[in-house]
Amino acid sequence: MKDKRRGKQTVQFSNPPRIVGTHTIAGALEARGPLGQHFDATAKDGLYGEKSFEKAEAKMMEDAVNEVLRKTANLPEYVDYFIASDLLDQIVISNSAAAKFPIPFIGLYSACSATALCSSLAAMLIDSGYASKVIIATSSHNSTAERQYRYPTEYGMQRPPYSQWTATGAAAALIADSGEGPRITFCTHGKVIETGLTDPFDMGGVMAPAALDTIVQHFEDTSRGLDYYDLIVTGDLGEFGHQLLKELARDQVNIQFPNNLSDCGIMLYDREQGVDSGGSGCACSALVVFSKLYKDLCEGTISKLLLVATGALHSPTSCHQGEPIPSIAHAVAIER
Amino acid sequence: MKDKRRGKQTVQFSNPPRIVGTHTIAGALEARGPLGQHFDATAKDGLYGEKSFEKAEAKMMEDAVNEVLRKTANLPEYVDYFIASDLLDQIVISNSAAAKFPIPFIGLYSACSATALCSSLAAMLIDSGYASKVIIATSSHNSTAERQYRYPTEYGMQRPPYSQWTATGAAAALIADSGEGPRITFCTHGKVIETGLTDPFDMGGVMAPAALDTIVQHFEDTSRGLDYYDLIVTGDLGEFGHQLLKELARDQVNIQFPNNLSDCGIMLYDREQGVDSGGSGCACSALVVFSKLYKDLCEGTISKLLLVATGALHSPTSCHQGEPIPSIAHAVAIER
Repeated sequence: MKDKRRGKQTVQFSNPPRIVGTHTIAGALEARGPLGQHFDATAKDGLYGEKSFEKAEAKMMEDAVNEVLRKTANLPEYVDYFIASDLLDQIVISNSAAAKFPIPFIGLYSACSATALCSSLAAMLIDSGYASKVIIATSSHNSTAERQYRYPTEYGMQRPPYSQWTATGAAAALIADSGEGPRITFCTHGKVIETGLTDPFDMGGVMAPAALDTIVQHFEDTSRGLDYYDLIVTGDLGEFGHQLLKELARDQVNIQFPNNLSDCGIMLYDREQGVDSGGSGCACSALVVFSKLYKDLCEGTISKLLLVATGALHSPTSCHQGEPIPSIAHAVAIER
Repeated sequence: MKDKRRGKQTVQFSNPPRIVGTHTIAGALEARGPLGQHFDATAKDGLYGEKSFEKAEAKMMEDAVNEVLRKTANLPEYVDYFIASDLLDQIVISNSAAAKFPIPFIGLYSACSATALCSSLAAMLIDSGYASKVIIATSSHNSTAERQYRYPTEYGMQRPPYSQWTATGAAAALIADSGEGPRITFCTHGKVIETGLTDPFDMGGVMAPAALDTIVQHFEDTSRGLDYYDLIVTGDLGEFGHQLLKELARDQVNIQFPNNLSDCGIMLYDREQGVDSGGSGCACSALVVFSKLYKDLCEGTISKLLLVATGALHSPTSCHQGEPIPSIAHAVAIER
């Protein structure tokens, strides 16, 4: 029965599912960043024509799903599952977007690691024959996240330099058992790691150990070399977390990454955009992976990508109660 | 590829996974209810020896997992996935419990339908050969849910008679590809249904249409008759929602249930316990299914059970903003 299992935490797909289409909708700040030209659409402001930031975020996710259906010439009736996730309490954005589509729905919560978890589950459902087409979508919105996790933005609260900026945007992808597009070949699901950190601004510090744990496990399980991938992209450690990951790798497990390690939180913005340590939020890795990196994979600029999406699994309540912040990282290998 | 798919929304398992062990921990009120004698353990009060209700709920989930591991003589190192869900923002209970186990973790959010969604995904991962052992766990706690969704209990807010009582408790189950125990034979994943209702107290009214949609789809997809199952148990519609489901079934799709329809929210409490329309919360269906009904299935008192777990997918924010409440129902067939 366990012939698809590799090592302790990894699954290898026998018929690697393909990412046959993606659609990205970026916020205005994200669109002015270095990847601006690669996004399919841009929200000109945070309200996106809606009455609340929450409705705006849900509409972005709905639009991303509709556009990916249109691009791939699919009707929702022929999609087997819709798998989605976001940052808000009770993943209410995903639930509300899912209400617009007559597709069986699976809602996940995994904070900023959502894109990898959604993709991996979609690939599992397809490779195993339970589905032939699965739509995944993730979103985040700076204004919905800030007022939920921290304070209303109008307070103008000071942010420490290691804090990260929740990205605004939504992305969807159609994953299928046939068609054209890069393939999901392996996935490594992470364990929950708790190091005792309690500062919700220090997400890079909280998540770097989880990223390292999953990276080490992935390479152990697959027997691949660190240089196998053209790019190993974490999401979203930011500058501070990225640096910490490299230091932990060197000091704890004697790993020196070749020149192929980057981070979605660093790639999404220019340093001058005032996002401190970098981007975060479910949309961050989704916007980076499903825009530029997806095109790079389709065009052959890169052939082998490992997405290691990271999530800080706290809630405002758990932080107020002084609880340590659990974190997780899920890895998905995407190859031409 | 799609040989495991039945109809539009249903999967049939080729090697139906078994529920080889369960453990239930009930709150004090639940333990005084009609199923009291069937629970494995009881929390004598809401704090369960911890400093906060949230820590109490997380400890209950952790204890349930440890006990199911002990009963089935398994070590966490040999469990392939831990799949969990709860009601709190960012499923922080599940995340915090997962940090105690070195098992790859998949966090879901599906409100009170969590037990069916967790079970169905576990069965999919096992039947398809990605895993041989999966632990699932769900929990809810009246005091953590009330203060998150409504008001601090100290306010003594009046509850309308159609409101439901969030159950306190946690349950875990080990699902595996071998061993003894009832089998998960089919699952039907629900679509998100929005009828426009906005009253967060009227969860039965919100969820009954979703329950009906999934029930109709399950019987259409499987070509089974309504009387195939010894028991069709929804969770958790309560008295009002249960009545509404029967009326909708009769009036909209001309279905008259034989005498085999019940509801976990009705079964968990006596009417005299002051829970108004009945129980709710992720723990409600988990406590009912993994205690008495699991024993009934093991002993042969019943042979064929269909769990149709329902969830109201709102958040406090979406309710305050006057948004309609989306709902969902997932069905899992469990057979001797």
